[in-house]
Amino acid sequence: MDEALIGRIVEEVLHSLGGDAAGTVHGMPSRTVRVGVSNRHAHLTPEHSDILFGPGRRLTPLRPLLQPDQFASKETITIATAQGVIPNVRLIGPERKYTQVEISRTDAFLLGLDPPIRQSGNLEGSPGCVLIGPAGSVIIDHGVILAGRHLHCHTSEAAVLGLRDRQIIRARFGGERGGVMENLLVRVGDIHKLELHIDTDEANAFGLKTGDTAELVY
Amino acid sequence: MDEALIGRIVEEVLHSLGGDAAGTVHGMPSRTVRVGVSNRHAHLTPEHSDILFGPGRRLTPLRPLLQPDQFASKETITIATAQGVIPNVRLIGPERKYTQVEISRTDAFLLGLDPPIRQSGNLEGSPGCVLIGPAGSVIIDHGVILAGRHLHCHTSEAAVLGLRDRQIIRARFGGERGGVMENLLVRVGDIHKLELHIDTDEANAFGLKTGDTAELVY
Repeated sequence: MDEALIGRIVEEVLHSLGGDAAGTVHGMPSRTVRVGVSNRHAHLTPEHSDILFGPGRRLTPLRPLLQPDQFASKETITIATAQGVIPNVRLIGPERKYTQVEISRTDAFLLGLDPPIRQSGNLEGSPGCVLIGPAGSVIIDHGVILAGRHLHCHTSEAAVLGLRDRQIIRARFGGERGGVMENLLVRVGDIHKLELHIDTDEANAFGLKTGDTAELVY
Repeated sequence: MDEALIGRIVEEVLHSLGGDAAGTVHGMPSRTVRVGVSNRHAHLTPEHSDILFGPGRRLTPLRPLLQPDQFASKETITIATAQGVIPNVRLIGPERKYTQVEISRTDAFLLGLDPPIRQSGNLEGSPGCVLIGPAGSVIIDHGVILAGRHLHCHTSEAAVLGLRDRQIIRARFGGERGGVMENLLVRVGDIHKLELHIDTDEANAFGLKTGDTAELVY
């Protein structure tokens, strides 16, 4: 596809719309969003938390996350398979209805697993592993995934940006390792706050860190 | 930027050129190229090879690489810093005029280094590390880099594709983690063969492995 030609045409189109080549059309809301890089982490059911940390023990906040009511817990666990072990895996609280381990593809190689790319809670057919805590261990037969890239968006923010729940969009990143990510799932709801979530492989590939920004393309 | 609008315009333009929305213009050479994923590896000078493996010992081929005369050697080394150690680092032969260690950003965190993104041979100001071999060790004060994404292209292939040496282009990848990589350096010469080189972080982020394909965009 002749990008130079497209570029010239786009400039003309945007100019006629009262915008410029950067894609900013006057009067349009900014499509620049904050990037949150998710390192490997796990979510636990209350039942699994009881086994790993002791009956009645709940996860305790280390620091709040940008997403409402979510926090990185002081507690960590070790995840293990026959092929590998990863200690000090951070837990995200509060407890959930499902236990889920989100790792990078790099971690997956170390553990000898081939997890599917999934959104939170969609765990059917995913591989399991051993979860080891100070009070006990749990063997899960599924729940290990590579987190699918997604955009958290509050209902009010979605209205302003013209985004709808489950919409698939793209995001552009600048810099030396800049580029475009496709197949980005939009998750709209009152429990969300505008933030683009990617994993550490994606962050390293694009040279990104938490707090950097991306431009939504849709 | 209104991608839907651009898409419609592009389809019209390509249609008028006798092409289709996939960007294929009839009569144009294919811009689909093979992807080569570079895992962490090192290149050695003959002098450093002598120290690490013994005087006069040259690297021995384990398997040939797609790039002419280049091979993965049977020999491996350990690379180390005060913060971390990575054993079994593959060497690429034959020996070169410079010693260079190419790691992923993931590896860099493990080693406590912050290497610049560089093309081969451009090592000024890059950090060093300790290289450990069976016959001895070498401390290098520079030479550790994150490999900048690049396209190897033979002079004859460049002529057909209309590419020039040092040109900066883009590459598009399909699939669940599809997207576009920008700032892709084209390296044209008779010692090159058409192949897109990315590192393991980039491969994991885009869900790619060696032998997959990418579409060049320029």
